Amino acid sequence: MPTVTFLPGYRKVTVPEGATLLDAARAAGLSMNVVCGGEGKCGKCQVYVKDGTVSFDREKYRRFFSEEEIARGVCLACRAYVVGDVQVEVPAGSLIEEQKILVEIPGMQEIPLNPAVRKYEVRLEPPSLEDTTPDLGRLLEGIERQGGPPPNRVYAPLGVLCSLPQVLRRSGWHVTATVALVPGGYRLSSVDEGDTTGRLYGAAVDLGTTTIVAYIRSLVDGRILATASNYNRQISCGEDILSRVNFSRRSGLARLQQLAAESINEALTTAADAAGIDREEILEVMIAGNTVMTHLLLGIDPAYMIAEPYIPVVRRMLSTAAGRIGIAAHTNAGVYTFPAVSNFIGGDIIADILAAGMAEREEATLMVDIGTNFEAVLGNSDWMLSCAGAAGPALEGGEVLFGMRANPGAIERVRIDPDTLAPSVSTINGLRPRGICGSGLIDLLAELFRACVIDRTGGINLELDHPRIRKGQYYPEYVVAWKEETSIGKEIVITENDIKSLIMSKAAIHAACMTLLDAAGLAPGDISRVCFSGAFGNYLNKENAVTIGLIPEIPPECIENIGNGAITGANIALVDRRRRKELDGLARRITYIELNADPSFMDRYTSSCFLPHTDIALFPHVQQTLEACRAKQGVRSWQA
Amino acid sequence: MPTVTFLPGYRKVTVPEGATLLDAARAAGLSMNVVCGGEGKCGKCQVYVKDGTVSFDREKYRRFFSEEEIARGVCLACRAYVVGDVQVEVPAGSLIEEQKILVEIPGMQEIPLNPAVRKYEVRLEPPSLEDTTPDLGRLLEGIERQGGPPPNRVYAPLGVLCSLPQVLRRSGWHVTATVALVPGGYRLSSVDEGDTTGRLYGAAVDLGTTTIVAYIRSLVDGRILATASNYNRQISCGEDILSRVNFSRRSGLARLQQLAAESINEALTTAADAAGIDREEILEVMIAGNTVMTHLLLGIDPAYMIAEPYIPVVRRMLSTAAGRIGIAAHTNAGVYTFPAVSNFIGGDIIADILAAGMAEREEATLMVDIGTNFEAVLGNSDWMLSCAGAAGPALEGGEVLFGMRANPGAIERVRIDPDTLAPSVSTINGLRPRGICGSGLIDLLAELFRACVIDRTGGINLELDHPRIRKGQYYPEYVVAWKEETSIGKEIVITENDIKSLIMSKAAIHAACMTLLDAAGLAPGDISRVCFSGAFGNYLNKENAVTIGLIPEIPPECIENIGNGAITGANIALVDRRRRKELDGLARRITYIELNADPSFMDRYTSSCFLPHTDIALFPHVQQTLEACRAKQGVRSWQA
Repeated sequence: MPTVTFLPGYRKVTVPEGATLLDAARAAGLSMNVVCGGEGKCGKCQVYVKDGTVSFDREKYRRFFSEEEIARGVCLACRAYVVGDVQVEVPAGSLIEEQKILVEIPGMQEIPLNPAVRKYEVRLEPPSLEDTTPDLGRLLEGIERQGGPPPNRVYAPLGVLCSLPQVLRRSGWHVTATVALVPGGYRLSSVDEGDTTGRLYGAAVDLGTTTIVAYIRSLVDGRILATASNYNRQISCGEDILSRVNFSRRSGLARLQQLAAESINEALTTAADAAGIDREEILEVMIAGNTVMTHLLLGIDPAYMIAEPYIPVVRRMLSTAAGRIGIAAHTNAGVYTFPAVSNFIGGDIIADILAAGMAEREEATLMVDIGTNFEAVLGNSDWMLSCAGAAGPALEGGEVLFGMRANPGAIERVRIDPDTLAPSVSTINGLRPRGICGSGLIDLLAELFRACVIDRTGGINLELDHPRIRKGQYYPEYVVAWKEETSIGKEIVITENDIKSLIMSKAAIHAACMTLLDAAGLAPGDISRVCFSGAFGNYLNKENAVTIGLIPEIPPECIENIGNGAITGANIALVDRRRRKELDGLARRITYIELNADPSFMDRYTSSCFLPHTDIALFPHVQQTLEACRAKQGVRSWQA
Repeated sequence: MPTVTFLPGYRKVTVPEGATLLDAARAAGLSMNVVCGGEGKCGKCQVYVKDGTVSFDREKYRRFFSEEEIARGVCLACRAYVVGDVQVEVPAGSLIEEQKILVEIPGMQEIPLNPAVRKYEVRLEPPSLEDTTPDLGRLLEGIERQGGPPPNRVYAPLGVLCSLPQVLRRSGWHVTATVALVPGGYRLSSVDEGDTTGRLYGAAVDLGTTTIVAYIRSLVDGRILATASNYNRQISCGEDILSRVNFSRRSGLARLQQLAAESINEALTTAADAAGIDREEILEVMIAGNTVMTHLLLGIDPAYMIAEPYIPVVRRMLSTAAGRIGIAAHTNAGVYTFPAVSNFIGGDIIADILAAGMAEREEATLMVDIGTNFEAVLGNSDWMLSCAGAAGPALEGGEVLFGMRANPGAIERVRIDPDTLAPSVSTINGLRPRGICGSGLIDLLAELFRACVIDRTGGINLELDHPRIRKGQYYPEYVVAWKEETSIGKEIVITENDIKSLIMSKAAIHAACMTLLDAAGLAPGDISRVCFSGAFGNYLNKENAVTIGLIPEIPPECIENIGNGAITGANIALVDRRRRKELDGLARRITYIELNADPSFMDRYTSSCFLPHTDIALFPHVQQTLEACRAKQGVRSWQA
């Protein structure tokens, strides 16, 4: 079989003739950037053949390449077939980069501890001719004496029974039993030699489409011992959910199941190593993921979720043994997945709701989780409404000329001097700018609007005579950073086209929020707070978010960033069995509003495609501020 | 690797050099008679090397062979090592023969039907944009509408969820769901396309040390569809329980687990084929086996049961999925094993108690199950006492010169003319006699005693001048069949030594029954009935059993043969979930009396080593009959 060598790392792999370079890269453990899932559609998996040849129809994919790239031997890895030994260079841009993953959440230590799994140290009388109680009965009686559940309520899995006689005898009848509360009773999850009551761990996992975050905590005292995060290895099978589902239809669900488990295992291993514990000591795992991710992890076919009428197989909380789905914890550890409301309001959003404490308050909260898609939930302890939609990739830096993910070098904060129109920017890790990420784009939009560089439709005011404002090749543009300031050898600009994409994205979110409010018969003033969940919300300038009309106007002090709500919610459900038990009921209580089926949503969307909105009266405070700005600036008129 | 060819069937198998011929025979699927478990101790696995050579220390095992056998190249398969290609002849006597297995039980059809597993045919509305209930929720709501349990009580295993979306759509949303009642709720075991409500089957299995019996019945109407029986394939690893446990310690538990499952699968396959059903349609399996067999089937180590203080790992009813232990039924079929009282009062005896209906009666029943070991249970709906002991192999035909198992050609009934002392015998399948099985031996003992050929100690009256009564080579003997009447080319005799072995066996059983009665403060007259369970009891002449003092004297009309109580009990627990649920409680309620720890047992045993007993007054009716016999016979005096 031919050998494929990947440069610059000289990773070698042997693949059958006819395999694609993408197959080979996967086999070599390289995470290639395959937005389309390997269908030759996104042009992101570019590689250069350095030695040897591949079979690749360059003419067919010509549109993805510059002349220079073609001259250097560019190919699409997903469409180049191995015909013999070959050396291939993979440019950094074709690999998935290290991203800023939101891991730490303030206040996480204070969750009340009431775990579903407990340990009991028992010292047993050895059996004798006078007391021939069997091993299991003897142990269960000991557990009951230590305050555990009565023997007839405890189910003992075969795996535990198979090792029980040896463990009891080797330990001199001094063991620690782990007992988990499960529906209908208790399960004897594990029996260890000696006293291990101090070592009882649980893991909370945020299973994101892009990233995995894991927390390991002691279930004895609730302490967080370690956190870890890494990419979801499924990215090599497609960046977004749709391409993952398509990959699973094409190449089988099993691979995606395995990659999901491996991704979680990577995080668990890193965290366990950092915590100085053995993964085998993790006795419960609580996983929050969206509906498709949850299906994939459990090996349940998500195919029917992506075509009308968009039906998931299961919505309820599921529990299974870690060993059953290849999770690297104790083989009998209970793995619990959050329930979902619908395809689009998944377990991650239920975890957000838990993190936001929405169901514990009488006052209404509006919770918004923004990514490529957005989800919004409005409600209180009595009722909850939810909806979801596509925000488009603009807010995450996609489809914006110099947009990028929240990677090092991304501009994440922008201020524009209203007099000089000069921007001051800060970047992730303080590097020279490479592009602009979501929070930077929101800032830019608000600042350009306040400085009257753009009007309410997002149009750039070319009449302003300023070196940063110019006509551009295709669209009017504003120069955010000059060539010599950046690390990419060219200027970073934002175009009018970029701005319009951003406005469409924010409009969808605003219209969704208004649809929920209207369905509940509430006005923005009736909401006690807005919670942003997720990385995007976390780095967002709250005032700017209101200024551009991303959300209805409420005072900035009522806006909270709850951070990574999915991992916070997973932590809560991990340590507090009472809260976990309520989740199915909570999910069932949430009404899902299908925006596409709501005729008023389109009207609201159209009205929201302005800064901040067609009806500026909906944003009285923004109006006031803008008027003050304009009055001060004087020189530039505010175009109504 | 060398090839071993077994004659006469020319079965060929390739084994590594150094393997034993027994290993090779097992690999070739031959069930060799290995009483000692392959330790070179029983000499039963004799084979003849016809071509090629093996490494075998013939001098060391010389005691097992005649000169003629040595001349013909005899070896012990378990101690002969393969060094090259070899042809080996296996005499029929070294293979396990077809035995009379007790399969049919009268009155079995009439068990009330109340199964733990039910089917629901549901026709579902296909999902639409207006009704996006997930697949599982949609199905469970349909089940509830058909009178099934509420959705939140039903647990859905991952395996079912993985196939659910396809099954629902392929069937046009018309499916049949199988729901099983399990502790704490319900389990969705299976979802089939279309209406399969008429096809719901369960299996009852008697997992004996020697034989497997399986029943397949419809759980829709309770009908028995087929029965099957075969040997326990574990016999190739040792005939009795002790050698099996030793084999598991030596060669691993996994092999015995696999053989137990394969043996059950053989019976299930035969029965399923006869019934015209697919094994996949078997949704519940109820298994009655002794404590060691149950441990082995589940892969739980029985090692600690054979050494002081004789402790099993588990005693309670266990349930597991068929797929988990390799049982060839539906992979999610619930496999239930009967609970046990102790090492010696296992699930088979609990099944006997169920079959005898002991726990449903106010009057006391004495139940006796006789094999190489015996078990006795005394009690009623309020209380139960049990004990067990070694009967020795005599009653099953072992250790008796011409004793044999209940195979074709075994003498199973004997009458002796008191005047001529000539026996009339009947054999299994009416063949010419080859030996005497258990029921024949009991008959012989009683008839010889009545005819005054033997005295109350079992001594043969050599003063009787009769060609059938003679001194013999080692012991006095009685000729049961002349050479020309048998199929073995020699006479069949019973020796005084055989008779004394039989008396010791029966004495142990009688003493055990008396110990139970005494512990309960009852006399034999307080028992309303005696139930014999098992093959031995089934073919037993009741009056003869009392005559020799096998059991305390009660009128023959109060003695019942309940047949194979294990399979009857398994059938009851299969079809009636209420009775199954009571089993753990029943097992816990039974007090086990350790005979070895009871000083009065030895005294009782010694007193019972007479025909029928030292104290003939305990057997007034037998005394009366014997006196009448003797009076009539006149010629021979009855030696008191």
